Amino acid sequence: MATRGPRPQGADTRSDILAAASSVFADKGYAGASVRGIAREAGVDPALVHHYFESKPALFFASVMPVAQGLPAVNPSALVDQVLSGPVEEIGRRWVLAFLTTWDSAGPERFRALLLGVTSGDGALGSLRQFVTEALLLPLASKLQVDQPLLRTQAAAATVVGLAVGRYVVRLPEIANASVETLAALVGPSVQRLLVDPLPNELLPS
Amino acid sequence: MATRGPRPQGADTRSDILAAASSVFADKGYAGASVRGIAREAGVDPALVHHYFESKPALFFASVMPVAQGLPAVNPSALVDQVLSGPVEEIGRRWVLAFLTTWDSAGPERFRALLLGVTSGDGALGSLRQFVTEALLLPLASKLQVDQPLLRTQAAAATVVGLAVGRYVVRLPEIANASVETLAALVGPSVQRLLVDPLPNELLPS
Repeated sequence: MATRGPRPQGADTRSDILAAASSVFADKGYAGASVRGIAREAGVDPALVHHYFESKPALFFASVMPVAQGLPAVNPSALVDQVLSGPVEEIGRRWVLAFLTTWDSAGPERFRALLLGVTSGDGALGSLRQFVTEALLLPLASKLQVDQPLLRTQAAAATVVGLAVGRYVVRLPEIANASVETLAALVGPSVQRLLVDPLPNELLPS
Repeated sequence: MATRGPRPQGADTRSDILAAASSVFADKGYAGASVRGIAREAGVDPALVHHYFESKPALFFASVMPVAQGLPAVNPSALVDQVLSGPVEEIGRRWVLAFLTTWDSAGPERFRALLLGVTSGDGALGSLRQFVTEALLLPLASKLQVDQPLLRTQAAAATVVGLAVGRYVVRLPEIANASVETLAALVGPSVQRLLVDPLPNELLPS
């Protein structure tokens, strides 16, 4: 099939880009790395990087997250869009659903591998934190017309991460055995409250 | 100071009991272990075990949880009582407050050590799960007059564990820098909703 634009220069080009990306993210962190800099490190044209990886978040996900090895390409921006599309009253439920559906299909061992890396303090933690806050949470926060959107989205993220710890790592029986839909129906309204309900008085700016 | 009842038989008695407890919990799990069996393993009278440790949960906590090494004695039952005492409308807030106050004073490195042990699949996971569900969550669940109390309390536990992962491990900036009181005010109502609000229709028994 003929396509326009840059073409793969060989079977190893994609791996070369991934290796360059790992190295640049480790050196500069998520925020400091650029697709252009990664292309330079890999010795390829930036357009070729975009041929393989849609965006910096997608490249980060594929190169740094152990969970991504062997997974079908995950596009973090698409997950954020999925959470944001639809009625605002259901953001919480869509968030829980998208998060747990992704990890259920990835498999518990992948979540454990990610958590183990983070907990043992491997070098990817700083980049992971920036990735989560900038590529995942900031777009969500910027769509919410509320006080304290950063605190709210980070608390919501903590909630769904906790569900994943309960489901995939500790295996609390009710959480591990429930369907994703049941958990979204139960926990979605709590996440919703975190995201959009009026804050308690003591958290309002005085 | 003279007291009645069994006396310490030497400086190492407490350590002997802890070592015996570790071994018995590892063999039989939390539910299968008994104070009597642990006393037998340690070669002491059961009353002597109670002299040092108020209850099986306290003994488990001191012997198995890496977090407990060097901590002042923590009495898990007292934490549960603290969450349960006071108006039911504030259980969520008290839960978040008690949990984060305990871990803030224990120190982030203790939470990380616990999570690392759990995530690497060390032998204590099964016992820890039983301890959490039986010694901590079951007493809470049994006080709630609601449908699905086990699912609700496990989801609430997952939420506060997620907050701890965000605060002590990933260090999401807003979660790491907020006061315990702010987090309790923000997340408490969400935990409250999980615990006592009416369930969505699809989760009700049909």
